[in-house]
Amino acid sequence: MVISRRLIRVDWGDCDPAGIVFYPNYFRWFDANTTALFEMAGLSMPELYRTHGLVGFPLLDVGAKFLGASRFGDTLEAESSIEEWAEKTLKVLHRFRRGTMLLVDGYELRICAVPHPDDPARIKATLIPAIVRERLGRAST
Amino acid sequence: MVISRRLIRVDWGDCDPAGIVFYPNYFRWFDANTTALFEMAGLSMPELYRTHGLVGFPLLDVGAKFLGASRFGDTLEAESSIEEWAEKTLKVLHRFRRGTMLLVDGYELRICAVPHPDDPARIKATLIPAIVRERLGRAST
Amino acid sequence: MVISRRLIRVDWGDCDPAGIVFYPNYFRWFDANTTALFEMAGLSMPELYRTHGLVGFPLLDVGAKFLGASRFGDTLEAESSIEEWAEKTLKVLHRFRRGTMLLVDGYELRICAVPHPDDPARIKATLIPAIVRERLGRAST
Amino acid sequence: MVISRRLIRVDWGDCDPAGIVFYPNYFRWFDANTTALFEMAGLSMPELYRTHGLVGFPLLDVGAKFLGASRFGDTLEAESSIEEWAEKTLKVLHRFRRGTMLLVDGYELRICAVPHPDDPARIKATLIPAIVRERLGRAST
Repeated sequence: MVISRRLIRVDWGDCDPAGIVFYPNYFRWFDANTTALFEMAGLSMPELYRTHGLVGFPLLDVGAKFLGASRFGDTLEAESSIEEWAEKTLKVLHRFRRGTMLLVDGYELRICAVPHPDDPARIKATLIPAIVRERLGRAST
Repeated sequence: MVISRRLIRVDWGDCDPAGIVFYPNYFRWFDANTTALFEMAGLSMPELYRTHGLVGFPLLDVGAKFLGASRFGDTLEAESSIEEWAEKTLKVLHRFRRGTMLLVDGYELRICAVPHPDDPARIKATLIPAIVRERLGRAST
Repeated sequence: MVISRRLIRVDWGDCDPAGIVFYPNYFRWFDANTTALFEMAGLSMPELYRTHGLVGFPLLDVGAKFLGASRFGDTLEAESSIEEWAEKTLKVLHRFRRGTMLLVDGYELRICAVPHPDDPARIKATLIPAIVRERLGRAST
Repeated sequence: MVISRRLIRVDWGDCDPAGIVFYPNYFRWFDANTTALFEMAGLSMPELYRTHGLVGFPLLDVGAKFLGASRFGDTLEAESSIEEWAEKTLKVLHRFRRGTMLLVDGYELRICAVPHPDDPARIKATLIPAIVRERLGRAST
Protein backbone atom coordinates (compact mmCIF):
# COMPACT_ATOMS: atom_id res chain seq x y z
CA MET A 1 0.00 0.00 0.00
CA VAL A 2 1.27 3.43 -0.90
CA ILE A 3 1.43 5.91 1.97
CA SER A 4 2.23 9.55 1.34
CA ARG A 5 3.69 11.78 3.99
CA ARG A 6 4.09 15.50 3.61
CA LEU A 7 4.85 18.36 5.94
CA ILE A 8 2.43 21.26 6.27
CA ARG A 9 3.40 24.56 7.85
CA VAL A 10 0.50 26.23 9.58
CA ASP A 11 0.35 29.77 8.25
CA TRP A 12 -0.97 32.87 10.01
CA GLY A 13 -3.95 32.99 7.67
CA ASP A 14 -4.87 29.38 8.41
CA CYS A 15 -5.70 30.35 12.00
CA ASP A 16 -8.73 32.02 13.51
CA PRO A 17 -9.18 34.53 16.35
CA ALA A 18 -8.79 31.69 18.86
CA GLY A 19 -5.27 31.29 17.44
CA ILE A 20 -5.94 27.78 16.15
CA VAL A 21 -6.40 26.40 12.64
CA PHE A 22 -9.82 27.29 11.20
CA TYR A 23 -11.07 23.77 10.59
CA PRO A 24 -12.10 24.00 6.89
CA ASN A 25 -8.39 24.41 6.15
CA TYR A 26 -7.77 20.82 7.21
CA PHE A 27 -10.02 19.74 4.35
CA ARG A 28 -8.10 21.98 1.96
CA TRP A 29 -5.05 20.00 3.09
CA PHE A 30 -6.91 16.67 2.76
CA ASP A 31 -7.48 17.54 -0.88
CA ALA A 32 -3.83 18.41 -1.45
CA ASN A 33 -2.79 15.25 0.43
CA THR A 34 -4.76 13.17 -2.05
CA THR A 35 -2.94 14.87 -4.92
CA ALA A 36 0.37 14.17 -3.16
CA LEU A 37 -0.59 10.53 -2.65
CA PHE A 38 -1.28 10.10 -6.37
CA GLU A 39 2.01 11.78 -7.18
CA MET A 40 3.95 9.52 -4.84
CA ALA A 41 2.63 6.65 -6.95
CA GLY A 42 3.82 8.38 -10.10
CA LEU A 43 0.39 9.65 -11.09
CA SER A 44 0.24 13.33 -12.00
CA MET A 45 -3.37 14.35 -11.44
CA PRO A 46 -3.48 17.04 -14.15
CA GLU A 47 -2.08 14.50 -16.62
CA LEU A 48 -4.43 11.75 -15.41
CA TYR A 49 -7.39 14.08 -15.92
CA ARG A 50 -6.29 14.97 -19.44
CA THR A 51 -5.48 11.39 -20.48
CA HIS A 52 -8.70 9.89 -19.17
CA GLY A 53 -11.02 12.85 -19.73
CA LEU A 54 -11.79 13.07 -16.02
CA VAL A 55 -13.15 16.17 -14.33
CA GLY A 56 -11.74 14.99 -11.04
CA PHE A 57 -12.60 12.91 -8.00
CA PRO A 58 -15.42 14.82 -6.31
CA LEU A 59 -16.43 13.98 -2.75
CA LEU A 60 -19.31 11.77 -1.67
CA ASP A 61 -18.63 11.73 2.01
CA VAL A 62 -16.03 13.25 4.29
CA GLY A 63 -15.36 13.28 7.99
CA ALA A 64 -12.75 14.21 10.55
CA LYS A 65 -12.14 13.97 14.25
CA PHE A 66 -10.07 16.72 15.84
CA LEU A 67 -8.01 15.47 18.77
CA GLY A 68 -5.79 18.49 19.29
CA ALA A 69 -5.37 22.02 18.00
CA SER A 70 -2.65 23.41 15.74
CA ARG A 71 -1.29 26.93 15.77
CA PHE A 72 0.63 29.40 13.62
CA GLY A 73 4.12 28.10 13.01
CA ASP A 74 3.35 24.45 13.76
CA THR A 75 4.67 21.84 11.37
CA LEU A 76 2.22 19.01 10.84
CA GLU A 77 2.96 15.66 9.27
CA ALA A 78 0.10 14.53 7.06
CA GLU A 79 -0.10 10.82 6.28
CA SER A 80 -2.50 9.56 3.64
CA SER A 81 -3.37 6.23 2.09
CA ILE A 82 -6.24 4.54 0.30
CA GLU A 83 -8.21 2.25 2.54
CA GLU A 84 -11.05 1.06 0.36
CA TRP A 85 -11.67 0.62 -3.33
CA ALA A 86 -14.84 0.12 -5.31
CA GLU A 87 -15.25 0.26 -9.07
CA LYS A 88 -15.99 3.96 -9.15
CA THR A 89 -15.02 5.14 -5.67
CA LEU A 90 -12.05 5.20 -3.37
CA LYS A 91 -11.68 6.06 0.29
CA VAL A 92 -8.63 8.01 1.42
CA LEU A 93 -7.52 8.15 5.06
CA HIS A 94 -5.78 11.27 6.33
CA ARG A 95 -4.00 11.66 9.64
CA PHE A 96 -2.17 14.75 10.89
CA ARG A 97 0.41 14.55 13.63
CA ARG A 98 2.60 17.09 15.39
CA GLY A 99 5.53 15.06 16.63
CA THR A 100 3.96 11.84 17.91
CA MET A 101 0.63 13.46 18.80
CA LEU A 102 -2.29 12.59 16.55
CA LEU A 103 -4.27 15.80 15.92
CA VAL A 104 -6.67 14.97 13.08
CA ASP A 105 -8.06 11.63 11.92
CA GLY A 106 -10.26 11.80 8.85
CA TYR A 107 -11.26 10.35 5.51
CA GLU A 108 -12.57 11.28 2.11
CA LEU A 109 -14.83 9.05 0.01
CA ARG A 110 -14.32 10.12 -3.59
CA ILE A 111 -15.95 9.17 -6.87
CA CYS A 112 -14.29 9.18 -10.26
CA ALA A 113 -16.11 11.64 -12.55
CA VAL A 114 -16.32 12.51 -16.24
CA PRO A 115 -18.44 15.16 -17.95
CA HIS A 116 -22.01 13.94 -18.46
CA PRO A 117 -22.47 12.89 -22.13
CA ASP A 118 -25.86 14.65 -22.36
CA ASP A 119 -24.75 17.86 -20.65
CA PRO A 120 -21.05 18.71 -20.31
CA ALA A 121 -21.91 21.08 -17.46
CA ARG A 122 -22.93 18.08 -15.33
CA ILE A 123 -20.74 15.23 -14.15
CA LYS A 124 -21.21 11.47 -14.15
CA ALA A 125 -19.51 8.64 -12.25
CA THR A 126 -17.12 6.45 -14.21
CA LEU A 127 -14.79 3.51 -13.60
CA ILE A 128 -11.53 4.42 -11.90
CA PRO A 129 -8.76 4.08 -14.53
CA ALA A 130 -6.94 0.76 -14.03
CA ILE A 131 -3.60 2.50 -13.64
CA VAL A 132 -4.81 4.27 -10.48
CA ARG A 133 -5.54 1.00 -8.75
CA GLU A 134 -2.37 -0.63 -10.06
CA ARG A 135 -0.23 2.13 -8.70
CA LEU A 136 -2.06 2.96 -5.50
CA GLY A 137 -3.83 -0.20 -4.39
CA ARG A 138 -3.11 -3.77 -3.73
CA ALA A 139 -3.90 -6.31 -6.45
CA SER A 140 -5.88 -8.41 -4.02
CA THR A 141 -9.14 -7.24 -2.38
CA MET B 1 -36.12 24.14 18.52
CA VAL B 2 -34.52 27.07 16.75
CA ILE B 3 -33.81 26.53 13.06
CA SER B 4 -31.82 29.07 11.09
CA ARG B 5 -32.11 29.39 7.36
CA ARG B 6 -29.84 31.56 5.27
CA LEU B 7 -29.15 31.91 1.58
CA ILE B 8 -25.66 31.44 0.22
CA ARG B 9 -24.61 32.57 -3.23
CA VAL B 10 -21.97 30.35 -4.74
CA ASP B 11 -19.16 32.67 -5.85
CA TRP B 12 -16.69 32.10 -8.69
CA GLY B 13 -13.87 31.65 -6.20
CA ASP B 14 -15.79 28.97 -4.30
CA CYS B 15 -15.56 26.69 -7.32
CA ASP B 16 -12.74 24.52 -8.63
CA PRO B 17 -11.57 23.63 -12.15
CA ALA B 18 -14.41 21.07 -12.40
CA GLY B 19 -16.75 24.06 -12.07
CA ILE B 20 -18.23 22.84 -8.78
CA VAL B 21 -17.83 24.05 -5.20
CA PHE B 22 -14.44 23.09 -3.75
CA TYR B 23 -15.71 21.08 -0.79
CA PRO B 24 -13.81 22.74 2.09
CA ASN B 25 -15.95 25.81 1.37
CA TYR B 26 -19.03 23.97 2.61
CA PHE B 27 -17.34 23.76 6.01
CA ARG B 28 -16.59 27.47 5.90
CA TRP B 29 -20.33 27.89 5.41
CA PHE B 30 -21.12 25.39 8.20
CA ASP B 31 -19.15 27.63 10.54
CA ALA B 32 -21.00 30.76 9.42
CA ASN B 33 -24.30 28.88 9.68
CA THR B 34 -23.59 28.16 13.33
CA THR B 35 -22.98 31.87 13.93
CA ALA B 36 -26.25 32.65 12.14
CA LEU B 37 -28.09 30.09 14.24
CA PHE B 38 -26.87 31.70 17.44
CA GLU B 39 -27.86 35.12 16.13
CA MET B 40 -31.35 33.94 15.24
CA ALA B 41 -31.72 33.08 18.90
CA GLY B 42 -30.55 36.56 19.88
CA LEU B 43 -27.03 35.48 20.77
CA SER B 44 -24.26 37.58 19.26
CA MET B 45 -21.21 35.32 19.20
CA PRO B 46 -18.61 38.09 19.59
CA GLU B 47 -20.57 39.40 22.60
CA LEU B 48 -21.06 35.90 24.02
CA TYR B 49 -17.31 35.28 23.78
CA ARG B 50 -16.50 38.54 25.56
CA THR B 51 -19.13 38.13 28.29
CA HIS B 52 -18.21 34.55 29.14
CA GLY B 53 -14.49 34.69 28.37
CA LEU B 54 -14.83 32.01 25.71
CA VAL B 55 -12.32 31.48 22.95
CA GLY B 56 -15.01 29.87 20.81
CA PHE B 57 -16.59 26.52 20.08
CA PRO B 58 -13.82 24.51 18.41
CA LEU B 59 -14.66 21.31 16.56
CA LEU B 60 -14.37 17.78 17.93
CA ASP B 61 -15.90 15.97 15.00
CA VAL B 62 -17.35 16.97 11.67
CA GLY B 63 -18.82 15.17 8.71
CA ALA B 64 -20.77 15.73 5.53
CA LYS B 65 -22.38 13.75 2.75
CA PHE B 66 -22.47 15.37 -0.66
CA LEU B 67 -25.54 14.37 -2.66
CA GLY B 68 -25.28 16.85 -5.50
CA ALA B 69 -22.90 19.49 -6.81
CA SER B 70 -23.29 23.28 -6.72
CA ARG B 71 -21.95 25.71 -9.27
CA PHE B 72 -21.08 29.40 -9.70
CA GLY B 73 -24.23 31.48 -9.43
CA ASP B 74 -26.30 28.88 -7.54
CA THR B 75 -28.26 30.03 -4.54
CA LEU B 76 -28.24 27.49 -1.73
CA GLU B 77 -30.52 27.45 1.27
CA ALA B 78 -28.63 26.42 4.38
CA GLU B 79 -30.71 25.08 7.27
CA SER B 80 -29.12 24.57 10.68
CA SER B 81 -30.27 23.45 14.11
CA ILE B 82 -28.84 21.90 17.26
CA GLU B 83 -29.57 18.21 17.54
CA GLU B 84 -27.76 17.15 20.67
CA TRP B 85 -26.59 18.81 23.83
CA ALA B 86 -24.15 17.73 26.47
CA GLU B 87 -22.72 19.81 29.31
CA LYS B 88 -19.74 21.02 27.30
CA THR B 89 -20.61 20.06 23.75
CA LEU B 90 -23.31 20.63 21.19
CA LYS B 91 -24.01 19.03 17.82
CA VAL B 92 -25.21 21.22 14.97
CA LEU B 93 -26.89 19.78 11.88
CA HIS B 94 -26.43 21.55 8.55
CA ARG B 95 -28.33 20.88 5.35
CA PHE B 96 -27.94 22.67 2.04
CA ARG B 97 -30.65 22.61 -0.60
CA ARG B 98 -31.00 24.10 -4.06
CA GLY B 99 -34.74 24.35 -4.54
CA THR B 100 -36.09 21.11 -3.08
CA MET B 101 -32.95 19.11 -3.83
CA LEU B 102 -30.84 18.19 -0.83
CA LEU B 103 -27.18 18.70 -1.75
CA VAL B 104 -25.26 18.49 1.51
CA ASP B 105 -26.13 16.81 4.79
CA GLY B 106 -23.63 17.31 7.57
CA TYR B 107 -22.94 18.03 11.22
CA GLU B 108 -20.48 19.67 13.54
CA LEU B 109 -19.77 18.47 17.09
CA ARG B 110 -18.42 21.48 18.96
CA ILE B 111 -17.00 21.99 22.41
CA CYS B 112 -17.22 25.15 24.49
CA ALA B 113 -13.69 26.45 25.17
CA VAL B 114 -11.94 28.93 27.45
CA PRO B 115 -8.23 29.77 27.69
CA HIS B 116 -6.38 27.20 29.79
CA PRO B 117 -5.72 28.68 33.26
CA ASP B 118 -2.13 27.37 33.29
CA ASP B 119 -1.27 28.48 29.76
CA PRO B 120 -3.41 31.07 27.98
CA ALA B 121 -2.06 29.84 24.64
CA ARG B 122 -3.89 26.54 25.18
CA ILE B 123 -7.63 25.96 25.45
CA LYS B 124 -9.79 24.00 27.88
CA ALA B 125 -13.35 22.69 27.74
CA THR B 126 -15.93 24.48 29.87
CA LEU B 127 -19.67 24.35 30.58
CA ILE B 128 -21.83 25.84 27.86
CA PRO B 129 -23.27 29.10 29.23
CA ALA B 130 -26.87 28.50 30.39
CA ILE B 131 -28.19 31.23 28.12
CA VAL B 132 -27.05 29.30 25.04
CA ARG B 133 -29.15 26.30 25.94
CA GLU B 134 -32.10 28.45 27.05
CA ARG B 135 -32.18 30.25 23.77
CA LEU B 136 -31.24 27.47 21.37
CA GLY B 137 -32.36 24.21 22.95
CA ARG B 138 -35.42 22.63 24.36
CA ALA B 139 -35.97 22.83 28.12
CA SER B 140 -36.51 19.09 28.31
CA THR B 141 -33.79 16.51 27.71
CA MET C 1 -23.01 54.70 -13.91
CA VAL C 2 -24.12 51.52 -12.16
CA ILE C 3 -23.03 51.21 -8.55
CA SER C 4 -23.58 48.02 -6.63
CA ARG C 5 -23.82 47.92 -2.88
CA ARG C 6 -23.90 44.73 -0.86
CA LEU C 7 -23.53 43.88 2.79
CA ILE C 8 -20.83 41.48 3.93
CA ARG C 9 -20.84 39.84 7.34
CA VAL C 10 -17.37 39.21 8.64
CA ASP C 11 -17.29 35.55 9.67
CA TRP C 12 -15.12 33.95 12.34
CA GLY C 13 -13.09 32.16 9.68
CA ASP C 14 -12.38 35.40 7.82
CA CYS C 15 -10.31 36.61 10.78
CA ASP C 16 -6.78 35.80 11.87
CA PRO C 17 -5.14 35.38 15.28
CA ALA C 18 -4.99 39.19 15.62
CA GLY C 19 -8.80 39.07 15.50
CA ILE C 20 -9.00 41.08 12.27
CA VAL C 21 -9.87 40.10 8.71
CA PHE C 22 -7.05 38.17 7.04
CA TYR C 23 -6.47 40.49 4.11
CA PRO C 24 -6.72 38.05 1.17
CA ASN C 25 -10.39 37.69 2.09
CA TYR C 26 -11.01 41.28 0.98
CA PHE C 27 -9.96 40.21 -2.51
CA ARG C 28 -12.32 37.24 -2.36
CA TRP C 29 -15.02 39.83 -1.64
CA PHE C 30 -13.76 42.11 -4.45
CA ASP C 31 -14.34 39.23 -6.84
CA ALA C 32 -17.86 38.58 -5.53
CA ASN C 33 -18.56 42.35 -5.65
CA THR C 34 -17.76 42.35 -9.35
CA THR C 35 -20.23 39.51 -9.88
CA ALA C 36 -22.83 41.46 -7.90
CA LEU C 37 -22.15 44.58 -9.96
CA PHE C 38 -22.77 42.69 -13.19
CA GLU C 39 -25.96 41.22 -11.73
CA MET C 40 -27.26 44.62 -10.66
CA ALA C 41 -27.04 45.55 -14.33
CA GLY C 42 -29.00 42.45 -15.27
CA LEU C 43 -25.96 40.48 -16.38
CA SER C 44 -25.73 36.97 -14.98
CA MET C 45 -22.05 36.08 -15.14
CA PRO C 46 -22.53 32.32 -15.63
CA GLU C 47 -24.95 33.07 -18.48
CA LEU C 48 -22.65 35.72 -19.95
CA TYR C 49 -19.78 33.24 -19.96
CA ARG C 50 -21.87 30.57 -21.70
CA THR C 51 -23.39 32.95 -24.28
CA HIS C 52 -20.10 34.58 -25.26
CA GLY C 53 -17.80 31.61 -24.71
CA LEU C 54 -15.80 33.50 -22.08
CA VAL C 55 -13.62 31.84 -19.48
CA GLY C 56 -13.98 34.86 -17.23
CA PHE C 57 -12.40 38.21 -16.51
CA PRO C 58 -8.98 37.35 -15.07
CA LEU C 59 -6.95 39.99 -13.25
CA LEU C 60 -4.14 42.07 -14.71
CA ASP C 61 -3.56 44.34 -11.77
CA VAL C 62 -5.08 44.73 -8.33
CA GLY C 63 -4.48 46.93 -5.34
CA ALA C 64 -5.98 47.97 -2.04
CA LYS C 65 -5.35 50.40 0.77
CA PHE C 66 -6.44 49.34 4.23
CA LEU C 67 -7.55 52.27 6.37
CA GLY C 68 -9.12 50.40 9.24
CA ALA C 69 -9.54 46.86 10.48
CA SER C 70 -12.69 44.72 10.51
CA ARG C 71 -13.56 42.05 13.03
CA PHE C 72 -15.80 39.03 13.52
CA GLY C 73 -19.44 40.11 13.47
CA ASP C 74 -18.86 43.40 11.64
CA THR C 75 -21.18 44.24 8.79
CA LEU C 76 -19.37 45.93 5.92
CA GLU C 77 -20.96 47.79 3.05
CA ALA C 78 -19.14 47.09 -0.20
CA GLU C 79 -19.63 49.60 -2.98
CA SER C 80 -18.40 48.82 -6.49
CA SER C 81 -18.47 50.51 -9.88
CA ILE C 82 -16.55 50.48 -13.14
CA GLU C 83 -14.20 53.42 -13.46
CA GLU C 84 -12.40 52.81 -16.72
CA TRP C 85 -13.12 50.94 -19.90
CA ALA C 86 -10.87 49.82 -22.71
CA GLU C 87 -11.69 47.47 -25.55
CA LYS C 88 -10.61 44.35 -23.71
CA THR C 89 -10.23 45.54 -20.12
CA LEU C 90 -12.26 47.17 -17.39
CA LYS C 91 -11.28 48.64 -14.05
CA VAL C 92 -13.56 48.09 -11.07
CA LEU C 93 -13.37 50.23 -7.93
CA HIS C 94 -14.24 48.66 -4.59
CA ARG C 95 -14.77 50.45 -1.31
CA PHE C 96 -15.71 48.91 2.02
CA ARG C 97 -17.25 50.95 4.80
CA ARG C 98 -18.43 50.17 8.32
CA GLY C 99 -20.98 52.86 9.02
CA THR C 100 -19.45 56.01 7.56
CA MET C 101 -15.87 54.86 8.07
CA LEU C 102 -13.97 53.94 4.94
CA LEU C 103 -11.96 50.78 5.67
CA VAL C 104 -10.75 49.53 2.29
CA ASP C 105 -10.20 51.37 -0.98
CA GLY C 106 -9.14 49.20 -3.88
CA TYR C 107 -9.46 48.31 -7.53
CA GLU C 108 -9.26 45.43 -9.96
CA LEU C 109 -8.10 45.73 -13.56
CA ARG C 110 -9.65 42.83 -15.42
CA ILE C 111 -9.32 41.51 -18.95
CA CYS C 112 -11.99 39.70 -20.92
CA ALA C 113 -10.78 36.19 -21.78
CA VAL C 114 -11.70 33.31 -24.08
CA PRO C 115 -9.99 29.94 -24.49
CA HIS C 116 -6.95 30.22 -26.77
CA PRO C 117 -7.86 28.88 -30.25
CA ASP C 118 -4.58 26.95 -30.51
CA ASP C 119 -4.68 25.49 -27.02
CA PRO C 120 -7.94 25.41 -25.04
CA ALA C 121 -5.92 25.07 -21.83
CA ARG C 122 -4.59 28.61 -22.36
CA ILE C 123 -6.54 31.85 -22.42
CA LYS C 124 -6.54 34.85 -24.76
CA ALA C 125 -7.83 38.41 -24.45
CA THR C 126 -10.97 39.29 -26.38
CA LEU C 127 -13.29 42.26 -26.88
CA ILE C 128 -15.66 42.90 -24.00
CA PRO C 129 -19.16 41.94 -25.23
CA ALA C 130 -21.06 45.09 -26.20
CA ILE C 131 -23.87 44.30 -23.77
CA VAL C 132 -21.49 44.58 -20.82
CA ARG C 133 -20.60 48.14 -21.66
CA GLU C 134 -24.19 49.04 -22.54
CA ARG C 135 -25.44 47.86 -19.23
CA LEU C 136 -22.57 48.87 -16.97
CA GLY C 137 -20.90 51.85 -18.59
CA ARG C 138 -21.80 55.28 -19.76
CA ALA C 139 -22.51 55.75 -23.48
CA SER C 140 -20.08 58.62 -23.62
CA THR C 141 -16.33 58.19 -23.09
CA MET D 1 19.65 42.06 1.88
CA VAL D 2 17.91 38.83 2.82
CA ILE D 3 15.95 37.20 0.02
CA SER D 4 13.72 34.24 0.70
CA ARG D 5 12.79 31.75 -1.97
CA ARG D 6 10.22 29.05 -1.51
CA LEU D 7 8.40 26.68 -3.81
CA ILE D 8 4.61 26.66 -3.94
CA ARG D 9 2.63 23.84 -5.49
CA VAL D 10 -0.61 25.05 -7.02
CA ASP D 11 -3.34 22.85 -5.58
CA TRP D 12 -6.66 21.91 -7.19
CA GLY D 13 -8.54 24.04 -4.68
CA ASP D 14 -6.40 27.11 -5.46
CA CYS D 15 -7.88 27.22 -8.97
CA ASP D 16 -11.20 28.49 -10.26
CA PRO D 17 -13.56 27.29 -13.00
CA ALA D 18 -11.27 28.90 -15.61
CA GLY D 19 -8.64 26.43 -14.41
CA ILE D 20 -6.28 29.15 -13.17
CA VAL D 21 -5.33 30.31 -9.68
CA PHE D 22 -8.13 32.31 -8.03
CA TYR D 23 -6.20 35.51 -7.44
CA PRO D 24 -6.83 36.05 -3.69
CA ASN D 25 -4.73 32.93 -3.14
CA TYR D 26 -1.64 34.80 -4.32
CA PHE D 27 -2.10 37.12 -1.36
CA ARG D 28 -2.44 34.16 0.98
CA TRP D 29 0.96 33.12 -0.39
CA PHE D 30 2.34 36.69 -0.04
CA ASP D 31 1.50 36.46 3.64
CA ALA D 32 3.21 33.09 4.03
CA ASN D 33 6.19 34.38 2.03
CA THR D 34 6.65 37.16 4.56
CA THR D 35 6.68 34.61 7.37
CA ALA D 36 9.24 32.56 5.41
CA LEU D 37 11.38 35.66 4.85
CA PHE D 38 11.47 36.37 8.59
CA GLU D 39 12.35 32.75 9.28
CA MET D 40 15.20 32.77 6.78
CA ALA D 41 16.65 35.56 8.87
CA GLY D 42 16.28 33.47 12.01
CA LEU D 43 13.15 35.26 13.20
CA SER D 44 10.29 32.97 14.22
CA MET D 45 7.17 35.09 13.88
CA PRO D 46 5.18 33.39 16.65
CA GLU D 47 8.15 33.88 18.98
CA LEU D 48 8.68 37.47 17.83
CA TYR D 49 5.03 38.23 18.56
CA ARG D 50 5.25 36.73 22.04
CA THR D 51 8.56 38.37 22.94
CA HIS D 52 7.58 41.85 21.78
CA GLY D 53 3.86 41.70 22.54
CA LEU D 54 3.00 42.25 18.89
CA VAL D 55 -0.34 41.34 17.35
CA GLY D 56 1.27 41.11 13.96
CA PHE D 57 2.15 43.19 10.93
CA PRO D 58 -1.23 44.16 9.43
CA LEU D 59 -1.40 45.56 5.91
CA LEU D 60 -1.62 49.22 4.97
CA ASP D 61 -1.36 48.81 1.23
CA VAL D 62 -0.98 45.90 -1.13
CA GLY D 63 -0.80 45.46 -4.86
CA ALA D 64 0.04 42.95 -7.55
CA LYS D 65 0.42 42.73 -11.29
CA PHE D 66 -0.45 39.42 -12.91
CA LEU D 67 1.65 38.71 -15.98
CA GLY D 68 0.74 35.09 -16.56
CA ALA D 69 -1.63 32.48 -15.21
CA SER D 70 -0.83 29.44 -13.06
CA ARG D 71 -2.64 26.14 -13.08
CA PHE D 72 -3.19 23.03 -10.97
CA GLY D 73 0.10 21.16 -10.61
CA ASP D 74 2.36 24.12 -11.40
CA THR D 75 5.32 24.72 -9.15
CA LEU D 76 5.93 28.41 -8.54
CA GLU D 77 9.06 29.95 -7.10
CA ALA D 78 8.21 32.79 -4.77
CA GLU D 79 10.97 35.32 -4.09
CA SER D 80 10.55 37.90 -1.33
CA SER D 81 12.65 40.67 0.18
CA ILE D 82 12.18 43.91 2.08
CA GLU D 83 12.54 46.94 -0.12
CA GLU D 84 11.77 49.84 2.18
CA TRP D 85 11.93 50.48 5.89
CA ALA D 86 10.36 53.16 8.02
CA GLU D 87 10.19 53.30 11.80
CA LYS D 88 6.89 51.49 12.03
CA THR D 89 6.41 50.09 8.54
CA LEU D 90 8.15 47.83 6.08
CA LYS D 91 7.52 47.08 2.43
CA VAL D 92 7.93 43.53 1.17
CA LEU D 93 8.33 42.69 -2.52
CA HIS D 94 6.99 39.38 -3.80
CA ARG D 95 7.64 37.85 -7.18
CA PHE D 96 6.39 34.51 -8.46
CA ARG D 97 8.05 32.72 -11.34
CA ARG D 98 7.40 29.46 -13.16
CA GLY D 99 10.76 28.57 -14.64
CA THR D 100 12.14 31.87 -15.87
CA MET D 101 8.74 33.40 -16.56
CA LEU D 102 7.65 36.13 -14.17
CA LEU D 103 3.97 35.57 -13.34
CA VAL D 104 3.22 37.87 -10.40
CA ASP D 105 4.95 41.03 -9.24
CA GLY D 106 3.57 42.53 -6.06
CA TYR D 107 4.22 44.14 -2.71
CA GLU D 108 2.88 44.47 0.80
CA LEU D 109 3.24 47.57 2.96
CA ARG D 110 2.94 46.39 6.55
CA ILE D 111 2.80 48.15 9.88
CA CYS D 112 4.05 46.81 13.18
CA ALA D 113 1.12 46.55 15.62
CA VAL D 114 0.52 46.07 19.34
CA PRO D 115 -2.78 45.93 21.23
CA HIS D 116 -4.11 49.43 21.91
CA PRO D 117 -3.40 50.38 25.56
CA ASP D 118 -6.92 51.82 26.01
CA ASP D 119 -8.75 48.95 24.34
CA PRO D 120 -7.05 45.60 23.83
CA ALA D 121 -9.57 44.78 21.10
CA ARG D 122 -8.05 47.55 18.96
CA ILE D 123 -4.53 47.75 17.56
CA LYS D 124 -1.93 50.52 17.48
CA ALA D 125 1.23 51.10 15.44
CA THR D 126 4.54 50.63 17.21
CA LEU D 127 8.26 50.75 16.41
CA ILE D 128 9.56 47.72 14.55
CA PRO D 129 11.74 45.75 17.00
CA ALA D 130 15.42 46.49 16.30
CA ILE D 131 16.20 42.84 15.77
CA VAL D 132 13.90 42.71 12.75
CA ARG D 133 15.84 45.40 10.96
CA GLU D 134 19.18 44.01 12.05
CA ARG D 135 18.37 40.62 10.67
CA LEU D 136 16.41 41.58 7.58
CA GLY D 137 17.58 44.99 6.47
CA ARG D 138 20.71 46.83 5.67
CA ALA D 139 22.14 49.16 8.34
CA SER D 140 22.39 51.99 5.86
CA THR D 141 19.35 53.59 4.20
